[in-house]
Amino acid sequence: MASIYLDNAATSHPRPRPVVEAVSGYLNELGASPGRSGHRPSLESGRLVLETRELAADFFGASSVENVIFTANVTGALNIALKGYLRPGDHVLTTRFEHNAVLRPLHRLKEERNIEIDYFPVDSGGSIEREDFEQLLREDTSLVVINHASNVTGAVLDILPLSEWCGEYNLPLMVDAAQSAGSLDFPWDKLDAQFLCFTGHKGLMGPPGTGGMIIDPEMVERTKSFIEGGTGSKSDKLTQPQVLPDKYEAGTMNTAGIAGLNAAFKYLADEGLEQIIEKKKRLTEKLCRGMEDIPGIEVLGPGPGERRTSTVSITWSDGDTAELSVKLDREYDIMTRSGLHCAPLAHRELGTYPRGALRFSTGHFNSGDDIDRTLAAIKEILG
Amino acid sequence: MASIYLDNAATSHPRPRPVVEAVSGYLNELGASPGRSGHRPSLESGRLVLETRELAADFFGASSVENVIFTANVTGALNIALKGYLRPGDHVLTTRFEHNAVLRPLHRLKEERNIEIDYFPVDSGGSIEREDFEQLLREDTSLVVINHASNVTGAVLDILPLSEWCGEYNLPLMVDAAQSAGSLDFPWDKLDAQFLCFTGHKGLMGPPGTGGMIIDPEMVERTKSFIEGGTGSKSDKLTQPQVLPDKYEAGTMNTAGIAGLNAAFKYLADEGLEQIIEKKKRLTEKLCRGMEDIPGIEVLGPGPGERRTSTVSITWSDGDTAELSVKLDREYDIMTRSGLHCAPLAHRELGTYPRGALRFSTGHFNSGDDIDRTLAAIKEILG
Repeated sequence: MASIYLDNAATSHPRPRPVVEAVSGYLNELGASPGRSGHRPSLESGRLVLETRELAADFFGASSVENVIFTANVTGALNIALKGYLRPGDHVLTTRFEHNAVLRPLHRLKEERNIEIDYFPVDSGGSIEREDFEQLLREDTSLVVINHASNVTGAVLDILPLSEWCGEYNLPLMVDAAQSAGSLDFPWDKLDAQFLCFTGHKGLMGPPGTGGMIIDPEMVERTKSFIEGGTGSKSDKLTQPQVLPDKYEAGTMNTAGIAGLNAAFKYLADEGLEQIIEKKKRLTEKLCRGMEDIPGIEVLGPGPGERRTSTVSITWSDGDTAELSVKLDREYDIMTRSGLHCAPLAHRELGTYPRGALRFSTGHFNSGDDIDRTLAAIKEILG
Repeated sequence: MASIYLDNAATSHPRPRPVVEAVSGYLNELGASPGRSGHRPSLESGRLVLETRELAADFFGASSVENVIFTANVTGALNIALKGYLRPGDHVLTTRFEHNAVLRPLHRLKEERNIEIDYFPVDSGGSIEREDFEQLLREDTSLVVINHASNVTGAVLDILPLSEWCGEYNLPLMVDAAQSAGSLDFPWDKLDAQFLCFTGHKGLMGPPGTGGMIIDPEMVERTKSFIEGGTGSKSDKLTQPQVLPDKYEAGTMNTAGIAGLNAAFKYLADEGLEQIIEKKKRLTEKLCRGMEDIPGIEVLGPGPGERRTSTVSITWSDGDTAELSVKLDREYDIMTRSGLHCAPLAHRELGTYPRGALRFSTGHFNSGDDIDRTLAAIKEILG
């Protein structure tokens, strides 16, 4: 029997055929570096990257294409944004549901720049109360950083009202969209986020080594560059160019990966993003309902009917979920992820620290049969 | 007639077939993230990455495999090394032949941490005089950073004696091997460098989006992490793990690229690194001699018989090399790179600032006929 991959929140697998073809097509046929030389393959590579910026800008509703910055992954984007923007002594509001990609840079800045961090509460369904948020606001609060969807519970955080409140207080909002982009029906163009950080290889189904941030033009002056180096522009200057996207992009980029991300955006459009998301939603609901029916299993996070991404995490009252994960892999060829999912505070909030939980995350290429087999396997193991 | 790609110092093209097959093989078959989950494809991806570290360690003569850090490109590696290692007020010795990947981070640190920078002279053939070096040494000198080979002239800098002098003064040496790795017959195991930064997509013929640094174990304590985030290890900690390679690697890596780099190292071994380098050397010498015979053309850098990589840059007494580059591309389908090559101080030293020069860089897949056609084309244009 075919294996069942339910670890799409870590990285999507398999990738759509056009994505892989675009990567090998770039490597075999085009090959050149974009924005470095004046010859045609280099210019064509440059156009490929530019077109991918356009696709990303369209997808996320960015106002302009040069504000799309490509990075090696969403962690890189969050590091650029947090370390470029935050100043010594700044006060930052965030949540305990953040990934270590946000928590660790923040804690580094706490140590080095004496920033102060407060966490506002988020309920299990992802709701945020204006009152809770306002209670923590201070004169020196300079940023709100929040994940759009929890990589642990799949809960979708209510970032639209949050972005409005931030707007009222003239407070920049940084969104970590690692788990939501491509996995959630969401009106990106209605979101007023000053930094939107995304990954290319999860819900968007592009290759690893891709990701980026969309930065509000008004943030650029304050947000310093993070990695300096060759940009192929203003090469006579020993300082990083201040124009976008060059300010935040240095060195030869992962053009092969960008070619794949380009194909991924087109694949999402061709297949229909709504249909893709609808299918994942159906599979996830089926998985979720099935889990809730198994005695001894508790589903974390959103309750029935509450919004979630394609992620369902469970605990098992009678045993260790790590053991369950290993059995699913070894005996049933079903791939999941147990542990803390790089989100220690979330597990503390959920009461699942330090043991963690077992995460199932569906993808576009899963089938209803995959879910049936997975549920049957769990029942058999728990037997 | 087939096009002629002579821009291998920007990025190698075409890539060896096994490299492309390894990238698409990873994407099609393995797909999972390494070091994140416990299931077999994730473990297998982890083994693939580990094996690639071993190949890199073998190639560069690193003492231990965990000291091989993967980054998105050599610029990323140099930023980690320089920004992680240098402290406020440090004095740094370097050369004017550095790429902006070294110069720009150094100038950022000059601005922010008041580091001081001195440049020691390098002659056109890459020689460094001990006396010149020693004259600039100070009590507070804490690092020497140098490129192994100029990306402008192809001159090979004499880093072996330099590494000995640094050893005598107990001074860490950081080497930018972007232009030398895979393009130079060099006894890496004899080099005592505390930071060796490399790229995967030039002489090594791997995919873009790969590179790294090999860090001396003794440097790790002082060298802070640069990008913090999820590592799949010690996930309960809000600080970056201090173990290697995790300390300097955060977020999902470019596993597809690493798969390609893995295949590239094996390709170099299978084809014979010596033979590959010998072939490029022969082609480069042919190109160099041919250029020297064309009236009005001046070859920059190393003279006849002096060591160089596969790079030959020229100026043209009667005209603009940018124009020559465009003509070669448009009329002869020959791809080169004109301009400042992200190395402004090198061009100032060479007297070619701000006009720049025209760079030809041969690769493993060029032929003698490519060189003949290129020389004939130049003669025709200049004729």
